[in-house]
Amino acid sequence: MASRVIVENVWPGTGDPSLAIKRVEGERLGVEADIYTDGHEKLRAVLLHRPPGGAWTEVEMSALGNDRWEAAVTLSGVGRHLFAIEAWRDRFGSWREEVDKKRAAGIPVDLEIREGLALAEAAGVPATAGTVTGAEVLEAMRRKADRADLVRSAEFLVRADRPAAAFAAWYELFPRSASGDPGRHGTFDDVVARLPAIRAMGFDVLYFPPHHPIGRTNRKGRNNSLKAEAGEPGSPYAIGAQEGGHDAVHPELGGIEGFRRLVKACAAEGMEVAIDFAIQCSPDHPWLKQHPGWFAWRADGSLKYAENPPKKYEDIVNVDFYAPDARPGLWNALRDVVLHWAEEGVRTFRVDNPHTKPFPFWEWMIAEVQERFPDAVFLSEAFTRPKVMQRLAKLGFTQSYTYFTWRNTKAELTEYMEELAHGPMREYFRPHFFVNTPDINPVFLQTGGRPAHLIRAALAATLSGLWGLYSGFELCEATPLPGKEEYLDSEKYQIRAWDWQRPGNIIAEITQLNRIRKENAALHDHLGIQFLNAWNDAILAYARFTPARDNLLVVAVNLDPHHAQEADFEIPLWQLGLPDHASVTVDDLMRDARFTWTGKVQHLRLDPAHLPFAVWRLSGV
Amino acid sequence: MASRVIVENVWPGTGDPSLAIKRVEGERLGVEADIYTDGHEKLRAVLLHRPPGGAWTEVEMSALGNDRWEAAVTLSGVGRHLFAIEAWRDRFGSWREEVDKKRAAGIPVDLEIREGLALAEAAGVPATAGTVTGAEVLEAMRRKADRADLVRSAEFLVRADRPAAAFAAWYELFPRSASGDPGRHGTFDDVVARLPAIRAMGFDVLYFPPHHPIGRTNRKGRNNSLKAEAGEPGSPYAIGAQEGGHDAVHPELGGIEGFRRLVKACAAEGMEVAIDFAIQCSPDHPWLKQHPGWFAWRADGSLKYAENPPKKYEDIVNVDFYAPDARPGLWNALRDVVLHWAEEGVRTFRVDNPHTKPFPFWEWMIAEVQERFPDAVFLSEAFTRPKVMQRLAKLGFTQSYTYFTWRNTKAELTEYMEELAHGPMREYFRPHFFVNTPDINPVFLQTGGRPAHLIRAALAATLSGLWGLYSGFELCEATPLPGKEEYLDSEKYQIRAWDWQRPGNIIAEITQLNRIRKENAALHDHLGIQFLNAWNDAILAYARFTPARDNLLVVAVNLDPHHAQEADFEIPLWQLGLPDHASVTVDDLMRDARFTWTGKVQHLRLDPAHLPFAVWRLSGV
Repeated sequence: MASRVIVENVWPGTGDPSLAIKRVEGERLGVEADIYTDGHEKLRAVLLHRPPGGAWTEVEMSALGNDRWEAAVTLSGVGRHLFAIEAWRDRFGSWREEVDKKRAAGIPVDLEIREGLALAEAAGVPATAGTVTGAEVLEAMRRKADRADLVRSAEFLVRADRPAAAFAAWYELFPRSASGDPGRHGTFDDVVARLPAIRAMGFDVLYFPPHHPIGRTNRKGRNNSLKAEAGEPGSPYAIGAQEGGHDAVHPELGGIEGFRRLVKACAAEGMEVAIDFAIQCSPDHPWLKQHPGWFAWRADGSLKYAENPPKKYEDIVNVDFYAPDARPGLWNALRDVVLHWAEEGVRTFRVDNPHTKPFPFWEWMIAEVQERFPDAVFLSEAFTRPKVMQRLAKLGFTQSYTYFTWRNTKAELTEYMEELAHGPMREYFRPHFFVNTPDINPVFLQTGGRPAHLIRAALAATLSGLWGLYSGFELCEATPLPGKEEYLDSEKYQIRAWDWQRPGNIIAEITQLNRIRKENAALHDHLGIQFLNAWNDAILAYARFTPARDNLLVVAVNLDPHHAQEADFEIPLWQLGLPDHASVTVDDLMRDARFTWTGKVQHLRLDPAHLPFAVWRLSGV
Repeated sequence: MASRVIVENVWPGTGDPSLAIKRVEGERLGVEADIYTDGHEKLRAVLLHRPPGGAWTEVEMSALGNDRWEAAVTLSGVGRHLFAIEAWRDRFGSWREEVDKKRAAGIPVDLEIREGLALAEAAGVPATAGTVTGAEVLEAMRRKADRADLVRSAEFLVRADRPAAAFAAWYELFPRSASGDPGRHGTFDDVVARLPAIRAMGFDVLYFPPHHPIGRTNRKGRNNSLKAEAGEPGSPYAIGAQEGGHDAVHPELGGIEGFRRLVKACAAEGMEVAIDFAIQCSPDHPWLKQHPGWFAWRADGSLKYAENPPKKYEDIVNVDFYAPDARPGLWNALRDVVLHWAEEGVRTFRVDNPHTKPFPFWEWMIAEVQERFPDAVFLSEAFTRPKVMQRLAKLGFTQSYTYFTWRNTKAELTEYMEELAHGPMREYFRPHFFVNTPDINPVFLQTGGRPAHLIRAALAATLSGLWGLYSGFELCEATPLPGKEEYLDSEKYQIRAWDWQRPGNIIAEITQLNRIRKENAALHDHLGIQFLNAWNDAILAYARFTPARDNLLVVAVNLDPHHAQEADFEIPLWQLGLPDHASVTVDDLMRDARFTWTGKVQHLRLDPAHLPFAVWRLSGV
């Protein structure tokens, strides 16, 4: 407990060294700490780093002033890195400093030289009265001398993910709606046929809801009706039937061979597949008979349906993670489901409602999977209280759904981005901005028409490294179940067919946004952001930039889908080190135009009838 | 590591649960934490508290919203308290909530009742279908049911000090200058004669530099000259001579009997003695011969003098805390010095330069002494880098010298007080504001005359619960060693005599300030403070208040000792819950006047030729 050398306030961290901060492979990781000791002796400190599968190495830390020290390492290798700090009292360095001071003051140092020689001898460093104050002995002593009063910090975990974990555009669809005919169940091969169009829009990840056999008991009908009519497909979230459970493929989608063809076709397009990991079971799931000890049976021998009184999900029962036989049986089986699909080539898992399952399960399971598949990515679909969402990110989820979908005003968006980009969450919570999902048809989209869809797409695509949409958004489809934030005739319960070139679509704008994202490193995460003064509460303006400021964008969005808005606004000349009267070259990235701005305050007008946002790249003239 | 229930961000703390926060005996300690779990189950949490020498008790915590919980306990008993938090998943409470929801929704609960009865049976609580949802069973289950997924936080240390540790006015003097005759060495009995005057000024603590025998080797002469003339008394910080060391009394002060008479006389006046614990030794200290293994001998058999090249303190050598025989011999001996004086009735120890001695020594020694003397108080005299000063406070020092002495402008004082009162230091760093010391004759006092002394006295006395002065300040004595921040003819090296009623003294003002302090609880610590708008950078205005706002003062100080200054300023009507146009009754506590202010903005003028500050007490009309 009590030590002479103190190492504290180590940064960055999550508050618990065993819960990883998140970075991307290849990034530099800068580490700082308060390091000091009593008395006047000099200190030395090193940053220790262990990459995945590698050995510990060390790099010297340097003092920043006010007892703050820093060093940096490069995170080579996807996986779990560790860092730690060692600090100690530098006896020989202190001795040298004293000798130098005394010589400078003309004070004899004969006795000090004898003491220095004794230090060198103890360290096994050859030295004479003539060489002991020289650079060579100093360097040898730095390498060989004992580290006096050595202290070592805790070991801090860092998760280095592959770049796509931090930067990707997701496209979500229901494969069974891919046939183009509401009367014919779509297959993975139908999805393969859609891939070129999806890729052409610039999406990187193809994500779909559970692809497993769907239960028949209490199957839901269209619009979540309690009883399905004959021939209705049911909700894919009612997982498991006589055809199999979480490791099986719904036969009508094309079976495992169809799945493999889709995974392969995605790879050929430069995309990847993300699947849905939803732990609940339909009452027909094979596990109920094979492993009754994984469930919580009631006093009357029945199983409880999933519920949130008075709401009830009659087509779903839940496993019990702490049932008599659940450990290790159920836990291993769930991990093995993920490993099974990883072996089929899937590396990205969107996890349904993780906040209703035990924290310890996720921490264990994600570590187990990433041990075998270091490039595995887990997206947390938890829409719940802030601290629970933060915890899931800390314990291992690579990415997280967010409140973005419900942040519409300038104040809301500014506050939320400040929290994500500049608060403690920036170290471990990687936001994924979905503009809609099969469960969320936001009122803003329902009521704002095509301009609203353009506004939300522009915000998501330029505020976050990760963004996604659920198909239909590009067609501005937002017909609600009346009075609800849900879609009418939701694909969750029925097969739909769409005209993918429907008039009024925003495919061209989405395509251009995704192109801008790829070409501008400033948009590859959510971290480099500064909100700009714009004297109109309907206009949100922000700068997006790389740490080196070698890529600087200004985005302006009219948040009002119904009226044109205009405003004076400030352009961030200071980010380029320029004075307020300077000129900059501006590339309008949506309109493919180039011009010059002179002076810090400019004027803009954004008309939702045309394009309610602008993306400009600024560079020195 | 991985648990289902999370307890984190516990407040208050020092960042390390084993390093105590500071409170005063009898205070309420409020504790908060983030507490949450996965899923929908309800939680319960208790705050555990163990007073000094007592047993653990627990009090239920309540939810504040956003997963923040709180509870409070009263800190009865001086010494080390511990608190911790336990939280668990409340199965029966969750069950009750579900039953209530279902009943409200008209859903049958027969099966739930059976499940509730099973829970009651498992806990040994008698219940029937008729009583299991009643208040009695709920209460019995709260007491008896197992705590599911129980987690317990770390144990957090709290140091509860006696009130005088947080609120006291100190008076420092050199006993040898107490005779009134520069030719006669003063004695403790001379100090006893001075006590009524010191007490009349309102001081609570009488503090003096080391009272031990003074070495003769390399004794310093007046104004720090290298060689004392015959008959010069030397610096009392050169501790130890043939007459004894740290546990002996300098014979010329009156020996141990004189010391005991002073301690007794102080107690009779309602004051206490604070002594100086300075670890260095004169070359004549008995320890050099008795315990050579406690010192770092040099290659030529000599001992190193204390130095800070090119400065050298030729009359002092330092012990070596890590010398071959230093542990446990030296450490125990130093502790025993403190215990010796504690047994002589001393409870307050001003510690000289603790930052140049090992952190682990202080942490150990203070704990050892306070184990036997829980009311012992240690004041850290460390003027060094912020993090080192903070560390000393965290590891156990009760009070700390500060940078106050060098904070003169409105911006400096505001920033420093915000850090002390509203930053993390508020939990563990108790500032002691000295206006001067034998080592510090600030330029502001040297150049500002009587008004400067009034300004600094008012600031110290109203900004901090602890303040002190070194005698001569009340006489406005500030003659410097030319070009230095030190006193000419310093009492550190010679005996002085003073006219204690010298014209121009500020005894009346100091007396009144100390009276105001005693009568106003708002001034009993430094925590309740808010700086007020005053539209003149030479005017510092602030509100001081108790947590309950039942005592509210406004202090205004003209920081310019040379010119009258005036300003509009805001009075804190909001602290009384009053609107901006309200009227308040104002007691002018320095001028003994009462009047009414109406409206938030008032005007003041402060003339240093009369009184450069004002202290007003505000109350509702």
